Amino acid sequence: MIIVLKPHTSKEDVAVVERGVVDLGYEPHTIWGEVLTVVAAVGDETTHASLQALLSLPMVDKVMPVQRPYRLISRETHPESTVVEVGDCRIGGDVFHVIAGPCSVESREQTVNTALGVKAQGATLLRGGAFKPRTSPYDFRGLGQEGLDILVEARRETGLPIVTEVLKETDVDRVAAAADVLQIGARNALNYALLEVVAATGMPILLKRGLAATVEEWLLAAEYIVKSGNPNVMLCERGIRTYETATRNTLDVSAVAIAKQESRLPVIVDPSHAAGRCDLLIPLSKAAIAAGADGLMIEVHEHPEAALSDGAQQVTPEVFGSILREIEPFVRTAGKRLAVSPGGGGAA
Amino acid sequence: MIIVLKPHTSKEDVAVVERGVVDLGYEPHTIWGEVLTVVAAVGDETTHASLQALLSLPMVDKVMPVQRPYRLISRETHPESTVVEVGDCRIGGDVFHVIAGPCSVESREQTVNTALGVKAQGATLLRGGAFKPRTSPYDFRGLGQEGLDILVEARRETGLPIVTEVLKETDVDRVAAAADVLQIGARNALNYALLEVVAATGMPILLKRGLAATVEEWLLAAEYIVKSGNPNVMLCERGIRTYETATRNTLDVSAVAIAKQESRLPVIVDPSHAAGRCDLLIPLSKAAIAAGADGLMIEVHEHPEAALSDGAQQVTPEVFGSILREIEPFVRTAGKRLAVSPGGGGAA
Amino acid sequence: MIIVLKPHTSKEDVAVVERGVVDLGYEPHTIWGEVLTVVAAVGDETTHASLQALLSLPMVDKVMPVQRPYRLISRETHPESTVVEVGDCRIGGDVFHVIAGPCSVESREQTVNTALGVKAQGATLLRGGAFKPRTSPYDFRGLGQEGLDILVEARRETGLPIVTEVLKETDVDRVAAAADVLQIGARNALNYALLEVVAATGMPILLKRGLAATVEEWLLAAEYIVKSGNPNVMLCERGIRTYETATRNTLDVSAVAIAKQESRLPVIVDPSHAAGRCDLLIPLSKAAIAAGADGLMIEVHEHPEAALSDGAQQVTPEVFGSILREIEPFVRTAGKRLAVSPGGGGAA
Amino acid sequence: MIIVLKPHTSKEDVAVVERGVVDLGYEPHTIWGEVLTVVAAVGDETTHASLQALLSLPMVDKVMPVQRPYRLISRETHPESTVVEVGDCRIGGDVFHVIAGPCSVESREQTVNTALGVKAQGATLLRGGAFKPRTSPYDFRGLGQEGLDILVEARRETGLPIVTEVLKETDVDRVAAAADVLQIGARNALNYALLEVVAATGMPILLKRGLAATVEEWLLAAEYIVKSGNPNVMLCERGIRTYETATRNTLDVSAVAIAKQESRLPVIVDPSHAAGRCDLLIPLSKAAIAAGADGLMIEVHEHPEAALSDGAQQVTPEVFGSILREIEPFVRTAGKRLAVSPGGGGAA
Repeated sequence: MIIVLKPHTSKEDVAVVERGVVDLGYEPHTIWGEVLTVVAAVGDETTHASLQALLSLPMVDKVMPVQRPYRLISRETHPESTVVEVGDCRIGGDVFHVIAGPCSVESREQTVNTALGVKAQGATLLRGGAFKPRTSPYDFRGLGQEGLDILVEARRETGLPIVTEVLKETDVDRVAAAADVLQIGARNALNYALLEVVAATGMPILLKRGLAATVEEWLLAAEYIVKSGNPNVMLCERGIRTYETATRNTLDVSAVAIAKQESRLPVIVDPSHAAGRCDLLIPLSKAAIAAGADGLMIEVHEHPEAALSDGAQQVTPEVFGSILREIEPFVRTAGKRLAVSPGGGGAA
Repeated sequence: MIIVLKPHTSKEDVAVVERGVVDLGYEPHTIWGEVLTVVAAVGDETTHASLQALLSLPMVDKVMPVQRPYRLISRETHPESTVVEVGDCRIGGDVFHVIAGPCSVESREQTVNTALGVKAQGATLLRGGAFKPRTSPYDFRGLGQEGLDILVEARRETGLPIVTEVLKETDVDRVAAAADVLQIGARNALNYALLEVVAATGMPILLKRGLAATVEEWLLAAEYIVKSGNPNVMLCERGIRTYETATRNTLDVSAVAIAKQESRLPVIVDPSHAAGRCDLLIPLSKAAIAAGADGLMIEVHEHPEAALSDGAQQVTPEVFGSILREIEPFVRTAGKRLAVSPGGGGAA
Repeated sequence: MIIVLKPHTSKEDVAVVERGVVDLGYEPHTIWGEVLTVVAAVGDETTHASLQALLSLPMVDKVMPVQRPYRLISRETHPESTVVEVGDCRIGGDVFHVIAGPCSVESREQTVNTALGVKAQGATLLRGGAFKPRTSPYDFRGLGQEGLDILVEARRETGLPIVTEVLKETDVDRVAAAADVLQIGARNALNYALLEVVAATGMPILLKRGLAATVEEWLLAAEYIVKSGNPNVMLCERGIRTYETATRNTLDVSAVAIAKQESRLPVIVDPSHAAGRCDLLIPLSKAAIAAGADGLMIEVHEHPEAALSDGAQQVTPEVFGSILREIEPFVRTAGKRLAVSPGGGGAA
Repeated sequence: MIIVLKPHTSKEDVAVVERGVVDLGYEPHTIWGEVLTVVAAVGDETTHASLQALLSLPMVDKVMPVQRPYRLISRETHPESTVVEVGDCRIGGDVFHVIAGPCSVESREQTVNTALGVKAQGATLLRGGAFKPRTSPYDFRGLGQEGLDILVEARRETGLPIVTEVLKETDVDRVAAAADVLQIGARNALNYALLEVVAATGMPILLKRGLAATVEEWLLAAEYIVKSGNPNVMLCERGIRTYETATRNTLDVSAVAIAKQESRLPVIVDPSHAAGRCDLLIPLSKAAIAAGADGLMIEVHEHPEAALSDGAQQVTPEVFGSILREIEPFVRTAGKRLAVSPGGGGAA
């Protein structure tokens, strides 16, 4: 870390800072500048205590970390890309997967029909929420266990592996029993307690970026899971909260590129939640592919206009199919190929 | 809700929207405008399904809610301010309380000494983290149960009630056994599963605003707790995430004013986390008081420069005392009086 | 517009609002709801005074516009895409153009060499700043008239049309005399006085989005120019200001897609300013193309490490050439073809 | 500046960076760390070229400035607070001034009546827009020269000095002829060309913070004016653009406190534009005072519900008077006293 001292700090006060640096386990190197003095603290920032506490000394102006704080997920130390296996799907390699399905599991019929629909169009994994985090306690919050049972049935009917969100530690066991991929939603993206419990299942995890998480916070959330012994993490960019109101969130394609560059983990993009409106699904999906994404997650509903949640951003299976056909050339141009669903048609 | 149709929508398409409105349980009133047609959907938005799903219809341009989504906490339906009782402290009335203590419980000595220090200066509640949510898995994450035991001892020594954060459902029982107030941190502010479990204890809850939560999301998080049968909620503004980097977060005093106006709950302000630097504690505390806050939460540490977390924003008990003396006239001008700690000196 | 009244508004107060609506030239339609009353004001919002003033009435809770405020640039009223002609370049059609050159014109040699370099690699327009808006008054602010003269010489040497920024009304004439495209930078994007003066030249305008402008504000800035009688506007997305610090700005590809959908104007993307770092140029350029951009603007410098401004985001002509070769397949997949510079090699 | 190199940078590459540092006029001090190597560049960052250009070298990871970039306005080098004199008003000392008046000058009657009204209630300066920057070209943009003439008349009637916005360089002369304080609005806050032209008048300048300007950018904009030889700058905080939609902007009281701490300039707060709604004027004004503001600017209109711009945030003179009476005790508690208008009543 670099510790910047206030102008006109006396030699005695510089010595106080140097002692503080030593006490926290680093080696101080002081550079006497023309205008300012800085103390460089040599030591591994991920194994020593933070030097931020020195900011409470009156002569310290700034403490600036210089080192990246993640290790296990970093591409630098592990250059090879992680491929996460879910059933027959290998995510993070040269095959591009599309996860599709309803925002919420609302009924057996709605879910199975949508699952059959998305499989016929080319999806290779099924998404669907049994437990829904809702901003208002008066909104529909999912069918819970019944929803999980319906998802299992939809898998039986279609062969598609299931991606579904888990909201609480005490639900992890039953969600893990039903699902193939455990999803951590944006609101729980910095809920480290939950991250560690889901990590312990050893199952593939789809980790959404928090509503306003920095790329560093997102990668460190993944580091939590990998550090708990579970390397099967897929990152999911779903837009960030900004001042712009034309979209529900702002899709951050730079974050996709940085996540691919800095980490070795697969990156999925969720254009449905990013935009909050379905008329942007095609351009945002293409942009995600072009920025380096390994897959997409798209909300599809038999009858979006009657959906119990997020209807505005869901499309019918037919529209979903046309989206896949539109984006397929971009997948190829990006050097990947669009997966074909096990028994379904695929986009090819 | 108001449903705005795209220009040149045909009569047949307007009828489709009207049927959708009826199907979702509302009564449609169509206004044929010069440029646009809008359909007003009459019905209680908090008891009917959302009409947002209609956005998936091709002729619908916007769906705009018109009604506030919270009820139980609203000042309009419950004009009287809620007073939350914690030990002898009554928060939300005409006495202004200051919660103080270390970011993290690091040791028995550090915690008890700090507790004695803040009590002597005038704090009436003690804060201290036994379970710490940390962005990096390599940072100090608190002493856990040992930390809770130390807090209990600090209460025994000082008589100050304990405010401490709970991070996971499965910890709620033991934290509830030790604490007087359960704190929900900013990262868990939209973790509705945890909100309902802490609500079930019936204990006072200090609910921080999420890192980038809107005022509406914050109030709805409180609504979750009250709807679960626990009216003892204190809201806590702790700064929001913005583009500005001069402070760690941006203290949102407008949110304090709106929360007081819209809800009947007490509002506490945490200037330590808002600023992330201790040189702004006095002006931000004064601004919080002036905007209508019912109390403050300030981080205090025996030796901030050696703190294991958030050292930059902690002050010594002496500095804390000088802050109280500086802000006390503003408390009086705001028509409140600064609480005096049970056996301690108080600012008066 | 829709005027939402506060709960329990009396009939007399509703009548007050209705009279206010009439006074402002609209026709009021009142809908008596279960919980709330709303007044729909029928009338063309772009030709009548705004009803926002009614918010000052005590019984009015919200005033919500329903109509898009731009007209002349809108794709709805003018479905055909605008093609802006600059020399032999036709921007906005099926040829994809790349504008390249240094952030600042620093010397004759640097500019001409860079111009020759980017032309050889395939750029079809030359950018370069003679007047630079700098956050600090102590930074290099461009060579001014000398810079314009150098740009003219660079055009003579290469045949590339010149894109350069104009900062002040009183410079418009001399910049217009030298340049082929007048650029309005992000800091002046809402400087309507300057917009109207540049519009009056009738020349092609490259209009950057403001640092934190909404899509609507950006489109309305273009509407200012077109309303002044100049239809030759190219929009330029260059990233928006968000909380994320991994990039200098956050490239908003949704804005590109919306601008293409809502307006008929060409959209250029500037990945150099969006990222503020050159290691993201390739993925961001690809994403921009995929989202529907009509061209790119990339900063190129003979010797980036010695640049007087924005060195961090500039690349050498050789790296620029490799970027063009990387992105070319995406241009083709998007149904366009990469322009070939008049006498230069082009990417093909 | 501190230059952080990528891990595993070779000695040869470190030497390349050191040469780059020397070439830009700084003295390099290299610290060989356990994990990373950093090069500290010793030299005055405000007089040398920026080292940011070194970021274009492949082995450089980050370049971090350590020095504050402003000098002339800094409290450190000029500890005494600047007092700006406008007529008999001395702003920035121990008297707290309130600027009030309509958003726009709409007519002689409206302006003079409002001016008489605000003077009677205690305002000591009159605001009013003759040239209005409007997001839409279809909105009312002010009366221009006629508006200036009306303001002059209002001053003749009331004795109140005039604060009015100037939007373009070519208007500076005529606005300066009419006004006592030239206002730079939020949209032009980074329009350095305009800043220098208004600075040249030598008149007092009210410099609003940009829509999404950092505190540093705001202070540097003031540095531009002072560097041009005009020390009479008043900073004006008017809320920043954030994701929150409950208010039009988010009032940043931390920025007020930092501006007072870092600079010696007076700070005015504009709660009207910050909130965009008049029901928050009292708490936001109190918070501004408590955070250290030297004055307020409040929009007042004879008939807000008929205002041609920003009606939602304007109040009547009577309400304005009640606001002054509410905030006066906070002004006193902050150690200042509320100014009394020359011939008017004042709040006392």
